[in-house]
Amino acid sequence: MEEKKRTEIARLGEFGLIEKLTGNFYLNNNSTKTGVGDDAAVLDTAADGADRYTLLSTDMLLEGVDFDLVYFPLKHLGYKAVVVGINDILAMNGQPKQLTVSLGVSSKISVEQLEELYEGIHAACADYGVDLVGGDTRASVNGLVISVTVAGSIARDAVVFRSGARPNDLVCITGDLGSAYMGLHLLEREKRALDGHPDPQPDFKGYEYLLRRQLKPAARLDIVETLAENGLVPTSMIDLSDGLASDLLQICKSSDCGARIYLDRIPIARETYDLCEKMNIDPVVAALNGGDDHELLFTVPLEKQDLISKVGGIDVIGHITAANTGAMLVTPDGGEIPITAPAIG
Amino acid sequence: MEEKKRTEIARLGEFGLIEKLTGNFYLNNNSTKTGVGDDAAVLDTAADGADRYTLLSTDMLLEGVDFDLVYFPLKHLGYKAVVVGINDILAMNGQPKQLTVSLGVSSKISVEQLEELYEGIHAACADYGVDLVGGDTRASVNGLVISVTVAGSIARDAVVFRSGARPNDLVCITGDLGSAYMGLHLLEREKRALDGHPDPQPDFKGYEYLLRRQLKPAARLDIVETLAENGLVPTSMIDLSDGLASDLLQICKSSDCGARIYLDRIPIARETYDLCEKMNIDPVVAALNGGDDHELLFTVPLEKQDLISKVGGIDVIGHITAANTGAMLVTPDGGEIPITAPAIG
Repeated sequence: MEEKKRTEIARLGEFGLIEKLTGNFYLNNNSTKTGVGDDAAVLDTAADGADRYTLLSTDMLLEGVDFDLVYFPLKHLGYKAVVVGINDILAMNGQPKQLTVSLGVSSKISVEQLEELYEGIHAACADYGVDLVGGDTRASVNGLVISVTVAGSIARDAVVFRSGARPNDLVCITGDLGSAYMGLHLLEREKRALDGHPDPQPDFKGYEYLLRRQLKPAARLDIVETLAENGLVPTSMIDLSDGLASDLLQICKSSDCGARIYLDRIPIARETYDLCEKMNIDPVVAALNGGDDHELLFTVPLEKQDLISKVGGIDVIGHITAANTGAMLVTPDGGEIPITAPAIG
Repeated sequence: MEEKKRTEIARLGEFGLIEKLTGNFYLNNNSTKTGVGDDAAVLDTAADGADRYTLLSTDMLLEGVDFDLVYFPLKHLGYKAVVVGINDILAMNGQPKQLTVSLGVSSKISVEQLEELYEGIHAACADYGVDLVGGDTRASVNGLVISVTVAGSIARDAVVFRSGARPNDLVCITGDLGSAYMGLHLLEREKRALDGHPDPQPDFKGYEYLLRRQLKPAARLDIVETLAENGLVPTSMIDLSDGLASDLLQICKSSDCGARIYLDRIPIARETYDLCEKMNIDPVVAALNGGDDHELLFTVPLEKQDLISKVGGIDVIGHITAANTGAMLVTPDGGEIPITAPAIG
């Protein structure tokens, strides 16, 4: 047999891969406003001058990669899968409305376990006012696979892309960073420590917050609603799922700009600091590269500073600069460190 | 540890399972017209009196269950994944417009192989005028997983559900049945025969049609368009993916009706008969239960009989009856056999 050329996927990285695979696709339909390249696609499905667009986004969660059923309760997994899906719609400034859930289910999963998973899906649907409208349940010869697609709705003039950040805009984030990542570390540590114990009793005392951030993250619908109530439309926005560094670089790339982020303004929870110290992990690395935060990263014009502080629950961590200055982390002593995304693979 | 109750998923069957898992979900949003229970959900996403609805449907294909990479070329797999997704929109009488593709990709897959997969996705998108608008590509520790979600568009008064069949309606199908199933048998046979050969040269001569039906099925956009051109709105419709028996029973259940199907009217291709004879398989079983046909099964009022025969490419195989008569297969000698769906598991 002829030897075929073989390039490992890890060599390209996620975004290089998407570009390589979808770069030659073109859009056929007038109803497709924007496609691949943001948190969600923007569709003009009514196509007759209606004042709202439809948003569409999809995510996949795979056992052994995105979750470990040894310590991830199925109810929480169902909840988290919905949150992960919803956040993509929120990152466009939209309202999540409907979702579909497809499952690949191995024979080791029982009906009772699937019911637990759906309890979590149900709870998240109720919390965020989203309707489960479809799905596909298939046998899997391997692990559990969850695919979530969310449809949302947004006023035409309120869509926020990754590409709208402009120099001097403020860089804002919700919540705190690195806590979900440290929750994962804690779960992994207990799994290793208790492996083989007949009756494992993990000790998570004092770190309940970190666990909750990993196992039951919240979608920031509250923030999107609060921004709307205050008439505040961000200039750009993204869901913080890959870590601040990687997601900020996405905004910089899409908006053709740089950024200055002040290290001492990055919100890091006390429990995160505590556990980082015990586990000998740099809390800044956890915050920048940990990922799984499911908070929102967005930019607003400088003149909205007062409004942002009035709104509450939002931290301004830096500002947007011209493209040629790059994305920099400014340390308390005034030093500058280039922000880079960790390699994938 | 307390012993938990464990029910195997196979015991409930697909539809029992969906009912059990989603029966307690309710719909929160006015924009959700219908949810779980048909080929696609119907959404009023514009929500302001626009004259079109949005359709949304999702499918998952798993390696080792839905396809075998030993003999399924990746390019064809990409094409087929799109066709499978599109057919759900067509089964609602809608026009497919956008799709998202999420992939779980194991490290054994190279970039070049993914490019082949996307070549097929691209070809299907071009053939059916559908836009790829998003996706999610994840590492998988197991096999290849493909999740496809398709959004479609339809005029409000043209939506066709599974539930609209009425007694005396004609039962119509497109294409022929059982050929994709026999194509699969052929591929499996050659795989077994050639297992371990250093340079396998499978012999498919004379059965190219069966292979094409399995490896590169067509979405019946042509039929939906032709029906529309002739002003023909089916009373009910479903995508033939699980086999005529199972899918007809879905229509009967949703429409609360029975059916009489005439065995000698079921279209079966010559190649299907040939291979069935060689492999000692009953062609009627292949046609009724084989599945993977990806044709359309629909009903029209009796008075449309002339129009249906004029349109072409459609076979009338029976008619709808009252619920209490059940779904029956009528043999050439006038005998009646109850139609049952094969057990899942």
